[in-house]
Amino acid sequence: MDYESIFKAAIDRLHDEGRYRVFIDILRTKGSFPNAHCFHGHNGPKPITVWCSNDYLGMGQHPTVVEAMEEALHSVGAGSGGTRNIGGNTHYHVELEAELASLHGKEAALLFTSGYVSNEAALSTLGKLLPGCIIFSDELNHASMIAGIRTSGCEKRVFRHNDLDHLEQLLDEAPADAPKLIAFESVYSMDGDIAPIAEICDLADKYGAITYLDEVHAVGMYGQHGGGISERDGVADRVTLIEGTLGKAFGVMGGYVTADRNIIDCIRSYAPGFIFTTSLSPVLVAGALASVRHLKASQEERAGQQAGAAMLKAKFRDAGLPVMDSVTHIVPLLVGCPVEAKRISDILLAEYGLYVQPINFPTVPRGTERLRFTPGPIHTEAMMDELTEALVEIWGRLELQAVKAA
Amino acid sequence: MDYESIFKAAIDRLHDEGRYRVFIDILRTKGSFPNAHCFHGHNGPKPITVWCSNDYLGMGQHPTVVEAMEEALHSVGAGSGGTRNIGGNTHYHVELEAELASLHGKEAALLFTSGYVSNEAALSTLGKLLPGCIIFSDELNHASMIAGIRTSGCEKRVFRHNDLDHLEQLLDEAPADAPKLIAFESVYSMDGDIAPIAEICDLADKYGAITYLDEVHAVGMYGQHGGGISERDGVADRVTLIEGTLGKAFGVMGGYVTADRNIIDCIRSYAPGFIFTTSLSPVLVAGALASVRHLKASQEERAGQQAGAAMLKAKFRDAGLPVMDSVTHIVPLLVGCPVEAKRISDILLAEYGLYVQPINFPTVPRGTERLRFTPGPIHTEAMMDELTEALVEIWGRLELQAVKAA
Repeated sequence: MDYESIFKAAIDRLHDEGRYRVFIDILRTKGSFPNAHCFHGHNGPKPITVWCSNDYLGMGQHPTVVEAMEEALHSVGAGSGGTRNIGGNTHYHVELEAELASLHGKEAALLFTSGYVSNEAALSTLGKLLPGCIIFSDELNHASMIAGIRTSGCEKRVFRHNDLDHLEQLLDEAPADAPKLIAFESVYSMDGDIAPIAEICDLADKYGAITYLDEVHAVGMYGQHGGGISERDGVADRVTLIEGTLGKAFGVMGGYVTADRNIIDCIRSYAPGFIFTTSLSPVLVAGALASVRHLKASQEERAGQQAGAAMLKAKFRDAGLPVMDSVTHIVPLLVGCPVEAKRISDILLAEYGLYVQPINFPTVPRGTERLRFTPGPIHTEAMMDELTEALVEIWGRLELQAVKAA
Repeated sequence: MDYESIFKAAIDRLHDEGRYRVFIDILRTKGSFPNAHCFHGHNGPKPITVWCSNDYLGMGQHPTVVEAMEEALHSVGAGSGGTRNIGGNTHYHVELEAELASLHGKEAALLFTSGYVSNEAALSTLGKLLPGCIIFSDELNHASMIAGIRTSGCEKRVFRHNDLDHLEQLLDEAPADAPKLIAFESVYSMDGDIAPIAEICDLADKYGAITYLDEVHAVGMYGQHGGGISERDGVADRVTLIEGTLGKAFGVMGGYVTADRNIIDCIRSYAPGFIFTTSLSPVLVAGALASVRHLKASQEERAGQQAGAAMLKAKFRDAGLPVMDSVTHIVPLLVGCPVEAKRISDILLAEYGLYVQPINFPTVPRGTERLRFTPGPIHTEAMMDELTEALVEIWGRLELQAVKAA
């Protein structure tokens, strides 16, 4: 058996399609985000500006977060030393779970090593515990939700993106007495659009379904306390489970789900992806706790981010760049070809020191390859002007179409 | 649909079986491991001694590790801010992967957010890339390997634990031209026994299989440089993939796989559990890098652990306690009943301030419930005497059988 050739061929396919991924070797510079240092290649080593971080609010360099992590590091050490059940349950974990439950107005919360694992573990466990459950899944749901639904073994019915009529049609076609779960996101991270949460909950009520809402691209950023779109829209109490991350707006690492006590206790007790893994380092948990508490009270970061996103979209539109529709902090520019998307990204980094990653399949559907910018409260107007001018120059150089995308 | 009752019933089943898990709320005290602080319940708050940590060598409090983490925290901040492909690839990640590849004598390595995810992602991806692959899996393989094999969609054939004859029989029965992968662990963490790696590689050669070895309970602790049992036995170059963790002997958090460049590139490029997740915090990566480098050179921690484990086993045996056979640093005491195992653990914590978690189903098979001790280089002989005397008293009090387990 020639394993070597099989693996080699799998890599060659990626090169042929122009979607072989090369990771850019960088170090962000605490205290001067969004600036960073680029190591090899791209005319480096050199300083760069990062335009594609999911540390949306710059909390990864916030003094409160850094100090909390330093304190935990010095008082309890580097790692937790075990699973939550065997030595790895620290007082920080207990406190953060209480804080997250409170953030979303739920009875309980459960921490995971990542948002990916939280979706995979929670959805697969819920599905397994509800015999005959049918899961209704938005077609643009994240890979981690798809993985969880698959592992659940449940029947899956995919509804068109944010399409209430289609969702209702599918709910109506399902047996009335079958358990039903509707899985969706609030902010879809690659397009920047928002789900109609209240209307989906109406359908859930009508058809006796529970709801699972992924808020990873919204927590910290929307709602008076950073509880996400469900808080902003005043519907958090109508959603059965809310899932979030500590690795984006909260600036650290890890994921979580919140819900009623019994549901959380079930996931805690039955999910292999929770049970059989070393718990989050107490250093991370302490940092996340400080970050969640800060963003519960402070409006400054959220307001700065919204203003920055609005400004960048306006500058792109005024310059005739093909900015895609987005009602959130995410600013995507449509390219539509993996090779061109990578070329633009390469030029930006090598010639301008501006770092934005091309987004290709499988992260987005083929033909919708794009550049995705995430302006934050710490990107200045001068940085935005520099970026816009560079893009206009490159668009002209590559003779790309400079029309607004559909 | 009464979802509430379904979830409630799932929890009740655990209570009925005596295996509902209550997490002990603790904080370890850096600088004085294995000592910790216990918060609520158990006659606490009070100081305790931890006997069940997987921070086997106490590296979670090692000054070199803590300093490296502090430095990273102050120079690059709390989190990575993105996936490895989108802004989350720091120079620390690049350096640590090179270090881990070198540790196992492989061309390349890939980091994951946990050992669980590394097994799940690597095995599922390998299986998917090898059409018609049959995976041969030791019956005691960890839940994360089982999850990966299931997700791969491959046919699975389970061989009896460490049973070469049974493995060969299964290999021989499989079609000669089918791709084959043998998945196993070096140290089995609940029994403390060791796989015959060389002999399994002989069978792999004979039947044209590749091999996947989980060394999470061996890396850092065995071999001249901490490369695990495969280094100790001089067979690392014969194993196709070696998987390890940064969250046990290395004292931090995270997982990894090492192998030939093309195999690692395939997993890097195709595994959803790697692609779609925020990368490990650079703070953790910096700490792990310091820990791996330290344990490559230093023999002190490994020698201390082996001496400690031998001493504790001898003390248990001399006291007539039912210590199970183990040729490693893991010291299990057989109880055989989940209710009794929990009772002993509760008395140890409440009355003696000694913390060891009961190990129940599904972590071990029903009927083999146990207490699992992990003495390290920082447990003193006085601590071992205190523990042994406490166990003898409790064994007598509960009228448990004090015979050596089979």
